[in-house]
Amino acid sequence: VAVPPAFLADVVAVVGPAHALVDHGVVASYETDWTGRFVGRAPAVVRPSSTAEVAGVLAVCREHGVAVVPQGGNTGLVGGSVPLHGEVVLSLRRLTALQAVDVDAGQVTAGAGVSVADVQSAAARAGWAYGVDLASRESATVGGTVATNAGGIRVLRYGDTRAQVLGVEAVLGTGAVVSHTGGLLKDNTGYHLPSLLCGSEGTLGVVTAVRLALVPPDPARAVALLAFDRPAAAVTAANELRRTLRPLSAAELFTDDGLSLVTRHFGLARPFPGSYGAYLLVESSAASDPTDELAAAVRSLGGVADVAVAGTPGQAAALWRLREAHTEAINALGAPHKLDVTLPAAALGEFVERVPGLVRGLAPGARCFLFGHAADGNVHVNVTGLGPDDETVDGAVFELVAASGGSISAEHGIGAAKRRWLHLARTDAEIATFAAIKGALDPDRVLNPHVLLPEPS
Amino acid sequence: VAVPPAFLADVVAVVGPAHALVDHGVVASYETDWTGRFVGRAPAVVRPSSTAEVAGVLAVCREHGVAVVPQGGNTGLVGGSVPLHGEVVLSLRRLTALQAVDVDAGQVTAGAGVSVADVQSAAARAGWAYGVDLASRESATVGGTVATNAGGIRVLRYGDTRAQVLGVEAVLGTGAVVSHTGGLLKDNTGYHLPSLLCGSEGTLGVVTAVRLALVPPDPARAVALLAFDRPAAAVTAANELRRTLRPLSAAELFTDDGLSLVTRHFGLARPFPGSYGAYLLVESSAASDPTDELAAAVRSLGGVADVAVAGTPGQAAALWRLREAHTEAINALGAPHKLDVTLPAAALGEFVERVPGLVRGLAPGARCFLFGHAADGNVHVNVTGLGPDDETVDGAVFELVAASGGSISAEHGIGAAKRRWLHLARTDAEIATFAAIKGALDPDRVLNPHVLLPEPS
Repeated sequence: VAVPPAFLADVVAVVGPAHALVDHGVVASYETDWTGRFVGRAPAVVRPSSTAEVAGVLAVCREHGVAVVPQGGNTGLVGGSVPLHGEVVLSLRRLTALQAVDVDAGQVTAGAGVSVADVQSAAARAGWAYGVDLASRESATVGGTVATNAGGIRVLRYGDTRAQVLGVEAVLGTGAVVSHTGGLLKDNTGYHLPSLLCGSEGTLGVVTAVRLALVPPDPARAVALLAFDRPAAAVTAANELRRTLRPLSAAELFTDDGLSLVTRHFGLARPFPGSYGAYLLVESSAASDPTDELAAAVRSLGGVADVAVAGTPGQAAALWRLREAHTEAINALGAPHKLDVTLPAAALGEFVERVPGLVRGLAPGARCFLFGHAADGNVHVNVTGLGPDDETVDGAVFELVAASGGSISAEHGIGAAKRRWLHLARTDAEIATFAAIKGALDPDRVLNPHVLLPEPS
Repeated sequence: VAVPPAFLADVVAVVGPAHALVDHGVVASYETDWTGRFVGRAPAVVRPSSTAEVAGVLAVCREHGVAVVPQGGNTGLVGGSVPLHGEVVLSLRRLTALQAVDVDAGQVTAGAGVSVADVQSAAARAGWAYGVDLASRESATVGGTVATNAGGIRVLRYGDTRAQVLGVEAVLGTGAVVSHTGGLLKDNTGYHLPSLLCGSEGTLGVVTAVRLALVPPDPARAVALLAFDRPAAAVTAANELRRTLRPLSAAELFTDDGLSLVTRHFGLARPFPGSYGAYLLVESSAASDPTDELAAAVRSLGGVADVAVAGTPGQAAALWRLREAHTEAINALGAPHKLDVTLPAAALGEFVERVPGLVRGLAPGARCFLFGHAADGNVHVNVTGLGPDDETVDGAVFELVAASGGSISAEHGIGAAKRRWLHLARTDAEIATFAAIKGALDPDRVLNPHVLLPEPS
């Protein structure tokens, strides 16, 4: 892969020689995504330190016809931020400015390169909390989570990333630099660019800073792990809890295959003497101890085979570990195919029970782990033992999802991984509409041109 | 105003002769906005009854180069849905399909012509509530409130209309019919058209149906009216309550001028023996009676001169009437200029105290009433006694807002009324970006081409 020599010189003039990386040993660390399944080659990695430098770099890209892949913490799971077509990597990790929390308003402005964990910490120090949390919090950046509209384990309570974004600063593909980060709660003065950029996967603009709404902290938590004979019973319970337990802050599903993998891989104790068909990690958080409400809601559920209630914060963390460690334990088996899907509430139970057999039938040597955010209708189907380019299972699962009225991407995005199945989720009219927006805001196709949408015909 | 004769024939072929209205007596009722300040002339009013008919009408418009103004309940306040430039009125009031509430999901799909009140009623019958409420609930339609991203009296608690919209069906200016109303809570499969269309004021697409998220009902309410010596003290109290009283569901400000006008106009009793500089209507709503929490929060406030706590639902309604009747009482004085603005929390108190003097200095014969949603930073500056085209006061108020870091439109939109001041709220780069989006989704400029954005140069 190569870029015109004059391109590099022009980029160096913008960011300085130390931040236009071409040494392959250095560049390589930006070329592989977190799953290890998506590996590209980049002629260079450019690391601007300000919105003005981002604008300068993109102007050079437009001039030379060079495309970039914006990259934050590189924790994406759909190949959306690695240079699969020889793009230049535009790393936003140096945009680490984190303004003081506006304590009265409950808001903060963060640069794209600030990690989610650092936003959480800053919020906590100011007496607030950030409504987004996910297992990759230490590495995932604000910019990346906005570009992908990241979900995570608090969507049930606070909504997705889009719901937290009050304003953005961004450089669009047209070269326009837009900045509207005053944080006004009501502001109907034109099209809502924050919502449009959120989830656009770096194809319309490069988000450089974000004004985020914070939420009041809920210091008191109650956590319990529930066991069920069948996944469908756990899903039914999650939907019931969504109605009966306020505030329910998490209802996370996993199966015995996943629990066994995690406990063996990390040498953890199993939570119950016996094995069950499915588990549901339930959390309620509030201003005062919600344990009684949680216990009452659990008692009124049907189909619960066993219950472990955390009596201490350490026990709660241990239960959460069983869920959060899934990703790492599965990755240790080899790069998985990660199929992140939403099903309608009424269809989720059947889906969860049907998928393992579907996978076995198509790929007898594969292993299949299902876990996720049951009360959101969102499960992650992780399949190991498939070649990176063997997409038979992916396609079959996505077709089942679409036939059930679900979505082929709940929270990871389309990226490169699911691009060929976008038609299962969206009509031709919708895809044409997206393409028209792409054409308006990135007419020269310098921004992540090979993800999300089909190539222009 | 006129349209090509063939246009009318083609429209009649789509909607039938009974729904292409040209009789001036009938058309006139669609030509004047609710304030009476904005009066246009339309060659015809077209009333489609389905998404397919809307698509058919817009195809005829594109073919003949005829622009439309989409109109719902015609309760807008910025001249955004009346034919000020001789446009055809596209009335969506016949799109009244209201699907059964999905009780498990807490969602409902409503046609654009369904009133907000009817959504509220349907939600309540199903054990849910709709998070948007506003004084014009009986007339305002779902489509209109989505097109303007309506706010109202529950934004503090549940967010604006955009926050309720899970999916839309719409006909875009390109002719594309998009429909994505499955209501999945997590669905990252492309650009978020619901958020883009919400607040676009009918300039990008005609929303024909909406999938709305409902909220759990809070049957128990506590309402109090607080009196303060000065408006700034009331604003300070509202900001304090936003932090201390959970769940605060309303904090509505008005002044003694407004209270006196309302009590005289409707023959209502005054709530206190004395007169005060400002009043704050405070409401808390919850699953169980929040009166104690409300009383405790009020006791800890500084600067409260008097308090009236509603002891019965009737008393609560009477206190709310004092606030909600402002609009009608002011309108009875003559068509007001309605300046709906947001100020940063720290600037709102000074703004509220400064504006009456500013107005007096510029227009000695005018009367000025300020009221609104204090905890959102949103006040409505209503000025009567000005000619419809005398915009001296409007401009001065908007410039003060912009200089204070505020927004010239909190919840009403830009429409025709504030179009010439959009540059106070948005940079050239932002306006150019909006224009690029408009160009992509309505390339033939058939959708409300004379609101929100400047004319193309």
